[in-house]
Amino acid sequence: MQNGTQTLLLELFVIFVAAKLGGELFERLKMPAVLGEILAGVVFGPYAIGWVVPTPTVLSIAELGAIFLLFTVGLETRPKDLLKVGREATAVALGGIALPFIFGFGYMALANHPVHESTFVAAAMVATSVGITARVLRDLDALNTIAAKIILGAAVIDDVIGMILLAFVVGLVSVGGVRWLQLVVLAAEAIAFSFFMLFVAPRVMRRVSPNIGRLSTHNPQLILALTICLGLSVAAEKIGLAAIIGAFFAGLTFSDFSPRWNLQPRVEAINEFLAPFFFFTMGARLNLNVLTPDLVVAAAVISVLAIVAKILGCGLPVYGRGREIAMQVGVGMTPRGEVGLIVALIGLQMNMISASAYAIVIFMTAATTMFAPPILRVLFNRRGVSRSKSVVVSQLEGIADLRTGVAGPGAGEGKVESAE
Amino acid sequence: MQNGTQTLLLELFVIFVAAKLGGELFERLKMPAVLGEILAGVVFGPYAIGWVVPTPTVLSIAELGAIFLLFTVGLETRPKDLLKVGREATAVALGGIALPFIFGFGYMALANHPVHESTFVAAAMVATSVGITARVLRDLDALNTIAAKIILGAAVIDDVIGMILLAFVVGLVSVGGVRWLQLVVLAAEAIAFSFFMLFVAPRVMRRVSPNIGRLSTHNPQLILALTICLGLSVAAEKIGLAAIIGAFFAGLTFSDFSPRWNLQPRVEAINEFLAPFFFFTMGARLNLNVLTPDLVVAAAVISVLAIVAKILGCGLPVYGRGREIAMQVGVGMTPRGEVGLIVALIGLQMNMISASAYAIVIFMTAATTMFAPPILRVLFNRRGVSRSKSVVVSQLEGIADLRTGVAGPGAGEGKVESAE
Repeated sequence: MQNGTQTLLLELFVIFVAAKLGGELFERLKMPAVLGEILAGVVFGPYAIGWVVPTPTVLSIAELGAIFLLFTVGLETRPKDLLKVGREATAVALGGIALPFIFGFGYMALANHPVHESTFVAAAMVATSVGITARVLRDLDALNTIAAKIILGAAVIDDVIGMILLAFVVGLVSVGGVRWLQLVVLAAEAIAFSFFMLFVAPRVMRRVSPNIGRLSTHNPQLILALTICLGLSVAAEKIGLAAIIGAFFAGLTFSDFSPRWNLQPRVEAINEFLAPFFFFTMGARLNLNVLTPDLVVAAAVISVLAIVAKILGCGLPVYGRGREIAMQVGVGMTPRGEVGLIVALIGLQMNMISASAYAIVIFMTAATTMFAPPILRVLFNRRGVSRSKSVVVSQLEGIADLRTGVAGPGAGEGKVESAE
Repeated sequence: MQNGTQTLLLELFVIFVAAKLGGELFERLKMPAVLGEILAGVVFGPYAIGWVVPTPTVLSIAELGAIFLLFTVGLETRPKDLLKVGREATAVALGGIALPFIFGFGYMALANHPVHESTFVAAAMVATSVGITARVLRDLDALNTIAAKIILGAAVIDDVIGMILLAFVVGLVSVGGVRWLQLVVLAAEAIAFSFFMLFVAPRVMRRVSPNIGRLSTHNPQLILALTICLGLSVAAEKIGLAAIIGAFFAGLTFSDFSPRWNLQPRVEAINEFLAPFFFFTMGARLNLNVLTPDLVVAAAVISVLAIVAKILGCGLPVYGRGREIAMQVGVGMTPRGEVGLIVALIGLQMNMISASAYAIVIFMTAATTMFAPPILRVLFNRRGVSRSKSVVVSQLEGIADLRTGVAGPGAGEGKVESAE
């Protein structure tokens, strides 16, 4: 043990510090921290400096990190809020799925990549990162704008559909071709699972929740949430979906109880500890040797397609609200993230995509994620002047806001809407 | 990955649920939850039902659990409080170390066990479980009594000296005999490390702490705490101590900042997730095939010795305060816990103790831990009547207590003292 643990702990320490330093650096450059954590993996990983060659145990911890990441995302998503912006967000989501998939698959297929590889890359182009987008919007203090609400709703729908798509793709390649019966069964299971989690599970929770406090166990609510998170991750995999889909739905189920049970900061703490291992190892898997000029060109083209496809696919459905909101929504939907990375990772682990296709996806994720924040800052800053006006108004309107927390959801909604 | 992760997640899910159900069962029986978690490991582990055969990854996660367990314990221990009860607690601690070690080593040596095995078992008999004792005292609402303060102070000193003792024992067996120079170097390192952590680190923290909020990283205080926890664990192992000693000292360093930075609930969340894997795998390692009548007798004798040695060794130094407090302190010090288990585990992993000696330690830990709570309930309940009186007094004395939180450390000190 002495040796085994020491190596493991040392490895975990180096990864944690490297990832967090990378994140801090990127935050200071006004870039999303996750990119810094991924870059740390690239730099210190086996294909560059080579200080860290992730062991199977670290990779397992990294996958636990992905599960808690999606659990946290689910926990921060209210199903009700989703259903409220329902129709518009769904239209945006569908546009943001169809176009990137068609563009991505088309380009990859034209470039003579095998069908399954083209499918995986196209699937990785579909999902929008709720986490990164929400973070940028929060930093811009724009979470209560109409555009933000549509973006967040659509991003979540994107993630759900992206993961169902992943289930299809995995089913497709794991049966070695299109076996329609199997795909139909899988689709039925995925839909039944989603339906159960969105409509039945919340009712069960409402029934069960008052009794949880009666358990003698310490922190019963947290324990229940962790149990359901692990259980649904296992269940999702059992029926052929990705474990993270289960974790995401588990978070969704608990999101209504999160404030009362103080779940969010505690689950986020677990996430803060585990997620860096996920992002670091994502970077560490990037084989820099495949970076030929051809590949860089392909990655650049895919990245541009990924951006254009989201701006068009997501902007057009809300064009009725004016060009500004259409642009905000379109650009806000561009950052790919966790789900796209996980699609690529699963493809790599199943030997379904080559190291170069994996590199393309990482590059595309980084490019789309770096593209969005500065543009969003410009697009939302037009509100800057009106916002400083509205602060005065709100100060006059009442001090109550200050006590209930102005940053809370719903607060300040009126100001922002009138400012637009 | 599909298969690998699925097996891992399923294993984690089964362990987590089994451990938590075992804990819940024991809580309802008014027994410490950890025993239920360990028993779950015995029952579902490879030597009984065999549903769970812990993989190397799960064992690594379990060891991370031990690290966060001791980090949490450290976080809940104020160095100042330790120094306050200083002299008396130190006397109690030393008595509680010397007698169990002598009794344990004596019996094992007389029973013809090899020297290194006798040493390991004796070392496992030394440490007092801060966690279990504190939990029982908290349940009894007795945390503010003089006896409780002495117990907690002494238990922490016990843990620290127990771990230094472990370092000696590991050093002793890993060099294949007593090499005095090496032992002296190790002892000097251990003392220097402890000294640094107790006296220098808090000053460094006080200097650094105001600047931490300036970091751009999300949750900078938590990230710093996790970094230091991992870093000191690695450092402790590098100099030949156990990783958990580093984790414990890391917790100690942050304990003063824990309330302001809201660290405790967040680190405890990580601990709630990871610790069950530690306790479960502790139980799963218990080979039931070694349970011969002879072994049961030996385990029973060791358990009785472990109890008597602590009652005498810890009770006598405070006999001057009266027989009641002496008994409370003596019994309160009997539960062994994490550190004792870890000593046994390290012995097992280094092939320094046999499966039967490991079984003896597990049995002794369970017996001492089950012995204390009911007796403590009787010993502290004599205060029951006087406490209900003092509630009235405190209600008259002031409402301020209610606002600052009556349960807080220091609050209600006067009442309890006068009630004794």
